[in-house]
Amino acid sequence: MNPQPDCPFCRKLAAPPGSANGWAEAEIVWQFPHSVAVLGPWQFFTGYCVLVSREHATELHHHSHRAAFLNEMSTLAEAIGACFKPHKLNCESLGNLVPHLHWHVFPRFASDPERLNPVWLALERAKIDPAEKLRLETGTVPPAEVKTRLRDWLTANHAPTL
Amino acid sequence: MNPQPDCPFCRKLAAPPGSANGWAEAEIVWQFPHSVAVLGPWQFFTGYCVLVSREHATELHHHSHRAAFLNEMSTLAEAIGACFKPHKLNCESLGNLVPHLHWHVFPRFASDPERLNPVWLALERAKIDPAEKLRLETGTVPPAEVKTRLRDWLTANHAPTL
Repeated sequence: MNPQPDCPFCRKLAAPPGSANGWAEAEIVWQFPHSVAVLGPWQFFTGYCVLVSREHATELHHHSHRAAFLNEMSTLAEAIGACFKPHKLNCESLGNLVPHLHWHVFPRFASDPERLNPVWLALERAKIDPAEKLRLETGTVPPAEVKTRLRDWLTANHAPTL
Repeated sequence: MNPQPDCPFCRKLAAPPGSANGWAEAEIVWQFPHSVAVLGPWQFFTGYCVLVSREHATELHHHSHRAAFLNEMSTLAEAIGACFKPHKLNCESLGNLVPHLHWHVFPRFASDPERLNPVWLALERAKIDPAEKLRLETGTVPPAEVKTRLRDWLTANHAPTL
């Protein structure tokens, strides 16, 4: 489907990186052929990324390049796993707020006392508790290093690029 | 990876449907080549299914038939979408409690006042509130009919079977 003027992800995708409406260069982890991987804000889950489809589609079965897009999600998850050695990976496509296909790839660590719960319970608290928000935004690795490590792995493993 | 003796999903998969350790026949929606689709307990999300990989793998990049397994997930989501016309589909692979690959496919309906939130916030309340649990277990369509409608769609659309 063509870009939708009212879609926040379509607007981000259309804007040059670093421009007022686009993603910051520092956020962009990888330009896959069918998606863009960006660092997510909740770096308590060190390595957390959001993978945004280039195509505007609301559901997987509407996507013109579904298999390739899903493969990119899996590659990104593998990279996060390889770089940060989580206990488990959570891959989630919700789209309740922004119905343009995107994947949340959250690494979960054995050190997290809430590792058995979906991340959304903690993130709900962050909406009303600034200290919790700050805690969940803060990882053990600086964001610039998260990005570098992921890019190095993706480069070494010949991840596809645009 | 081979079946793991301590894995609840491996045990379910090994047991015949309808046996003490297996899924009930009434729960089983579809036997895909690489996964089994079963009706989920939270039928407030009418059509909610869990898709369990036949292979024991903890992460997608460890799965021997990843692309086919992901395609089965997308086919199941399409079936749920076609049968129950949700506003949005949520596809989630967590595995925090049972680290054997499975997808939660939750349809979200415009009539749900919590449609902008992940389902996990409501499901968390159900842990401590029996009335909320009952509400979330109860859909607008009886489970047997949910199963029939999904099976009819999957049959008509030539979904792959074991």
